[in-house]
Amino acid sequence: MDHASATPVKKQVIESMIPYFDQYFGNPSTVYDMGSKIKKVIEEQRSNVSQLIGAKPEEIVFTSSGAEANNLAIKGVALARKKKGKHIIISTIEHHSVINSARFLERMDFEITFLPVDKYGMVNPAHLSRVITPETVLVSIMHANNEIGTIQATPELADICREKGVLFHTDAVASVGNIPVDVNVLNVDLLSLSGVSLGGPKGIGALYFRNNLRLMPLIHGGIQEMGRRGGTENVPGIVGLGKASELAVEELTDKMNHLQKLRKCLVDGIHEKIGHAKLTGHPEKRLPGHASFCIEAIEGESLIYTLTHEGIYSNTGSACASKALKTSPVLMSIGIPPDIAQGSVVFTMNNNNRIEEVKYVLEKLSIAVAKLRALSPIWRKKISS
Amino acid sequence: MDHASATPVKKQVIESMIPYFDQYFGNPSTVYDMGSKIKKVIEEQRSNVSQLIGAKPEEIVFTSSGAEANNLAIKGVALARKKKGKHIIISTIEHHSVINSARFLERMDFEITFLPVDKYGMVNPAHLSRVITPETVLVSIMHANNEIGTIQATPELADICREKGVLFHTDAVASVGNIPVDVNVLNVDLLSLSGVSLGGPKGIGALYFRNNLRLMPLIHGGIQEMGRRGGTENVPGIVGLGKASELAVEELTDKMNHLQKLRKCLVDGIHEKIGHAKLTGHPEKRLPGHASFCIEAIEGESLIYTLTHEGIYSNTGSACASKALKTSPVLMSIGIPPDIAQGSVVFTMNNNNRIEEVKYVLEKLSIAVAKLRALSPIWRKKISS
Repeated sequence: MDHASATPVKKQVIESMIPYFDQYFGNPSTVYDMGSKIKKVIEEQRSNVSQLIGAKPEEIVFTSSGAEANNLAIKGVALARKKKGKHIIISTIEHHSVINSARFLERMDFEITFLPVDKYGMVNPAHLSRVITPETVLVSIMHANNEIGTIQATPELADICREKGVLFHTDAVASVGNIPVDVNVLNVDLLSLSGVSLGGPKGIGALYFRNNLRLMPLIHGGIQEMGRRGGTENVPGIVGLGKASELAVEELTDKMNHLQKLRKCLVDGIHEKIGHAKLTGHPEKRLPGHASFCIEAIEGESLIYTLTHEGIYSNTGSACASKALKTSPVLMSIGIPPDIAQGSVVFTMNNNNRIEEVKYVLEKLSIAVAKLRALSPIWRKKISS
Repeated sequence: MDHASATPVKKQVIESMIPYFDQYFGNPSTVYDMGSKIKKVIEEQRSNVSQLIGAKPEEIVFTSSGAEANNLAIKGVALARKKKGKHIIISTIEHHSVINSARFLERMDFEITFLPVDKYGMVNPAHLSRVITPETVLVSIMHANNEIGTIQATPELADICREKGVLFHTDAVASVGNIPVDVNVLNVDLLSLSGVSLGGPKGIGALYFRNNLRLMPLIHGGIQEMGRRGGTENVPGIVGLGKASELAVEELTDKMNHLQKLRKCLVDGIHEKIGHAKLTGHPEKRLPGHASFCIEAIEGESLIYTLTHEGIYSNTGSACASKALKTSPVLMSIGIPPDIAQGSVVFTMNNNNRIEEVKYVLEKLSIAVAKLRALSPIWRKKISS
């Protein structure tokens, strides 16, 4: 029930990767035939990944993660365009890799504007339009949020940027493979995706960049990835991501239908069985398998541990943040008070989850919440008042 | 015969990785038990990698390649210390990832000094000492060179830097696993290594950094790798690199003995069978399995193709450079004239190579060289004069 953190690599994906470990192990940059054969395989995978998001193969650069793709997009555009201007706009609910890339640019004399979101986690397009200045070189607003599931009105946001000649990047790590993602429909200039959330392996991601958009490399080196990223290509990882992309295209419609049913069952069940539990994020414009709640008078982390003992893995806040911060910045951004935000629990389902599992979760969850509330002085105060 | 470009991943290494694709697929940052178990596995692998080079586990940060480790070392130190000074020293025979990281810093107002090498590819310690200024924050000189096999007098170079309070980084991608590498013997502050050249998988590398040395992250993100590198950890890659490190320690002595025998046979044979063939790099202070030559009156690339038809894979120049440049900068640096540098051929052997293979190479190589020379006007001119 925590597939936003990681997904198991699919059997077919693992099988596709194996030969590239010891059989076709050559370096794609070598001049002899093993090198050129592997180079061809890489280009086939680039095509698979591009088809997943409606891009052209030459618009894809492979990275080692979604985080690296975000870093490359933000620093790569900013440093390549710094003569045009030094202003960047991001939302307050971005992934750490976006926020901290922007913070890095702040030290390089860039100015960063943080766009607030409403109670559902949505960025207001009119607000975006107002904060763009002639100095703005890049806007980065994530497609869907990991923690609250909200899907932005990305085409509207991107259209504003296109009109004003500002590049638009979206972190689509959470959405690719879960909802239709097409770079032309979204009208974005750059888009990050990752193998981890796609049934692909860890250690591989990709950045889409429109046409011949100029990017300062993040990892300087040789001529790999058309000079946009140095280092010997992670061939097995690239093959795995390509295969995962191919499978993601095939299964998307069925997966969405299945996940929406599971989510409805889970959300309705929680509303029914557990009082004082608030769905966070947008009620409809959200990832199909995503159900996030703030449950009053409990601590999210205690609840996670309790559920673990029943064989249920769930999350509180984002995985990267869970150990670093006390209160989730995303929940703060949507106006949830710190004491309520404490009770955050996030369920993110995958198509290997079954309806029986959701019912089991509902049963164990209401027992766990009742137990934790029985120990809570806040709860006693609340029900006695 | 081209293991400097890539090595096949060892069977035990592949087997060690498999469970982490779909069985233990969780995100190490999650709070529940699967996350913490995987986190523990990562720390065990960190310990394996650290033992390979005599470091402490907490001095290792995992990266996606040797190139990323080089980028992190050079940009990471320079940007963290820019208030101290903006001068960096590298040699003229560094890997592209080192040279182009330095070039990137040049655009950020750093000054770069390129240290020349002698005819064997050795940096002169006295020369290094002379070019260090109070502004110097980092010296980066590779441990062993991929293309000519030369092993630097790294401890002498590093001692000079230590005395002057300047950090010393070495790119040891070519040496780790091929000769003993100990960060304390070498006396270096930072060292890059890679899975590709170690019988480990592609897509994983590591940077050693002494103690609590401050580094600006290259990939900003969450708190992974103690905040030094963002992005979900490449768990299978880390497990593979850890296993490869463990095996590399066990096999090193036997491997070196075996490779020295193969190299002697190859070098003696080439000197004996092929006239006007010059060994490049240092005759003794070189990687045990490394034999590089400039063969007069032939084109290296034509020779590589001819050998490919006999089932022999070899290289000319470094793999990354092979498609990008006409004349190898490394061969230029050691004073080889462009017309001679054209005939570069590099054999890099691994412990799966056998003496019979070397004899086969010698036989096919002399036939190939004779054929190519028969077509060469330069050769006709040479032998008629």
